[in-house]
Amino acid sequence: MSRHIAFGVILTGTGGPGEHNRWLDPEIPGDASVDIDWYIEQAQLAEAAALDLVFIVDSQFITPDSPPHYLNRLEPLTLLSALAARTSRIGLVGTATTSYNSPFNLARRFASLDLISRGRAGWNVVTSGDGGTAGNYGRDEHYDYATRYARAAEHIEVSQALWDSYEDDAFPRDRASGRFLDPEKLHATGHRGEHFAVAGPLNIERSRQGQPVIFQAGDSEPGRDLGARYADGIFTHAASVEANRAFAADIRRRAAEAGRDPEGLRILPGAKIVVADTDAEARDLELAQHRLSNTFEQALAELGRPFGWHDFRQYDLDAPFPAEALVHAERSFKTQATQITENAVRQGLTLREVVERAAAPHRSPFVGSAQTVADTLEEWFRAGAADGFNIYVSTPSQLRRFIDEVLPILRARGLARTAYEGTTLREHLALPAPENRHTRARREAQVGALAGAV
Amino acid sequence: MSRHIAFGVILTGTGGPGEHNRWLDPEIPGDASVDIDWYIEQAQLAEAAALDLVFIVDSQFITPDSPPHYLNRLEPLTLLSALAARTSRIGLVGTATTSYNSPFNLARRFASLDLISRGRAGWNVVTSGDGGTAGNYGRDEHYDYATRYARAAEHIEVSQALWDSYEDDAFPRDRASGRFLDPEKLHATGHRGEHFAVAGPLNIERSRQGQPVIFQAGDSEPGRDLGARYADGIFTHAASVEANRAFAADIRRRAAEAGRDPEGLRILPGAKIVVADTDAEARDLELAQHRLSNTFEQALAELGRPFGWHDFRQYDLDAPFPAEALVHAERSFKTQATQITENAVRQGLTLREVVERAAAPHRSPFVGSAQTVADTLEEWFRAGAADGFNIYVSTPSQLRRFIDEVLPILRARGLARTAYEGTTLREHLALPAPENRHTRARREAQVGALAGAV
Repeated sequence: MSRHIAFGVILTGTGGPGEHNRWLDPEIPGDASVDIDWYIEQAQLAEAAALDLVFIVDSQFITPDSPPHYLNRLEPLTLLSALAARTSRIGLVGTATTSYNSPFNLARRFASLDLISRGRAGWNVVTSGDGGTAGNYGRDEHYDYATRYARAAEHIEVSQALWDSYEDDAFPRDRASGRFLDPEKLHATGHRGEHFAVAGPLNIERSRQGQPVIFQAGDSEPGRDLGARYADGIFTHAASVEANRAFAADIRRRAAEAGRDPEGLRILPGAKIVVADTDAEARDLELAQHRLSNTFEQALAELGRPFGWHDFRQYDLDAPFPAEALVHAERSFKTQATQITENAVRQGLTLREVVERAAAPHRSPFVGSAQTVADTLEEWFRAGAADGFNIYVSTPSQLRRFIDEVLPILRARGLARTAYEGTTLREHLALPAPENRHTRARREAQVGALAGAV
Repeated sequence: MSRHIAFGVILTGTGGPGEHNRWLDPEIPGDASVDIDWYIEQAQLAEAAALDLVFIVDSQFITPDSPPHYLNRLEPLTLLSALAARTSRIGLVGTATTSYNSPFNLARRFASLDLISRGRAGWNVVTSGDGGTAGNYGRDEHYDYATRYARAAEHIEVSQALWDSYEDDAFPRDRASGRFLDPEKLHATGHRGEHFAVAGPLNIERSRQGQPVIFQAGDSEPGRDLGARYADGIFTHAASVEANRAFAADIRRRAAEAGRDPEGLRILPGAKIVVADTDAEARDLELAQHRLSNTFEQALAELGRPFGWHDFRQYDLDAPFPAEALVHAERSFKTQATQITENAVRQGLTLREVVERAAAPHRSPFVGSAQTVADTLEEWFRAGAADGFNIYVSTPSQLRRFIDEVLPILRARGLARTAYEGTTLREHLALPAPENRHTRARREAQVGALAGAV
């Protein structure tokens, strides 16, 4: 575990996931999601505070009912590359799907971002939820759940193999001898798996952090296994200290079972942060912000998402919840749709009541005065419920209050850094740079030969 | 035709295509191809001179014998996005293959670059030459020639349809009414073609130049047709004024046959430029630079490329050229391999002689004193052999000589701009921003209805 609480900042433009009206806040420009200067400003603010990383979410499927930030946004890797050129220390983590990218192309783009940023790239591995995404990639249906996770695992393995194509001393670049490459240090990949075949090698060297940092956010059983096996960082929901401590323990147990060092993982719950002068004012502000998320009509449309974007507007709002809608549920949202349906049937809720509850404010644990927020963050960190937090704030002024009011309290307690000590994302997160697999194999073979000789 | 000669600068790091030892020049850092600061410096130099664009070549297949810049380089779109954040006016053109990218992903990345750069993105469409590329994308063999070009055409058409997903006034972003999107101005793509099926819409709006600029460089029959039908800009070899004038006339004829305005195309031959105090010194410098390109051994290995990377080192150098090697020729290099073989047989050359001739200096027409180079560029431009040039210089000091010595002569003649007049790449190239197809259809329907009413 790191000495410091790690902090990521979820950068969005015109509102986050499911937020339809955030852009009505006067602080949010209507074109924030496609304005690179907006992102640069937020990232530079976070970097000036020596935070660990900025994080970009993604999706590739929209309908006219999608929230504004979904409708129209910059693509994560081109966005992060621009940020790399305007920042120097902060980590740059982008979401990309293993379902609809070829391993060679995606591994190459992350490796390139990693070099451009001089070792600050991170990849949030997703398999894509919305079934409609398939239609943008020549498929009638999305991959089934098992296939998606199997592809994700193989995709990560191929990517990591590609990233090790060159050993760190592969390029002598010796002008005296004219020797540019040491061909012994270049390794083809030769991968032929169930889902991908990639000959390699990749045409790009490793960065100073060795490989991009892998993040993962799946909360299902296969999601937890995937994260525990491959991820350096885990994003998850912030439910409660107890639930998140149990989650962290479960992930570390799975990591140990997979033969990994369980302390080599950073678990970062997503933390909606609202800071005001008093706890009461902060709660009022949270409620006011929430009112900007969804109208009833938007919540009604949004309810359709786990049900394969089923249109609930066709039903009588005051009749019992239409449980038959469950047949439309997407595979990836099946758990969520089933919970909503079973809960509605058990409690005898009408459709209107289900929508109202879905639209009701989720009270974040991280809302209050700066003192309260700092205390809560510390409590979670010390309880082992979090190694850090991926924070979401609604406005730039809230990011400034977090930086100017909450962070100084944590710094005074030795829980947040005052300045960067390293230059790479792995260094920020106190994660070792992975040794190149071919270098390690050679080293181990030499040690073995030496042992044999003795 | 534009008033000005258009200028692109081919940005490479440790040497260009086929150049093995350029990095031995003291001006070229050994890690230039993976150093973003190197690219930023060159791009800013070109922008300060108000040149039209920088251009990034690409490939996705290497062997240990590949030239240094191929072995290890940044990926074009992440690279260009970083350049977008450190420049403000110069066009940013990147190479990407239609053979191994999905239209949705690639169109999205170019659209994102186009917004990040505020209308400066260009796409050099290629189909990938090296057969070995297939192995990095799960294929045993590269697509055959006809398929590659059919995919390219369909890929461009889908991309352009995706780029028109939102009409330019699709986002009222009206805070008073809370209306973010006008759903009538959002259009699905619904493409189901022979090679691609893409439902759309794309989740990103158009830039101020409407759509990224399409470039194409194929010189074969299908390549010329593809360029004439879809491209805004054509890259080609600079052979001679006569040959290039004929090429330009041929392309414009094909464009007219495809129903396009033949003057709506910019033809930019690649121009290797060498400037010195006198013509003789420039020729000497060209020869000295050439000696840094290839050793005999490297030229022998490089000869294998059009022959499917066939290894010619197995043959007696002083025996007649092994014409049987032609059976290994890649489809995409068949013409080149056949020419080499037939020429060798006709002239009775040994393998050594073929390699020596292949490695012999190509004398560029654009080598001389600043006055000579300016005169030659003007001659080509006035003769209709070129609308501009995609220039390649070996070193930063040569780029500075071009900018400091050649450009002022052209400016004095009114043939080069002294400062940017527009902000987008289309404006630099005097190309109109394409109207959104759905806006045009609505406008044309309204005109039709009006005519019917009268």
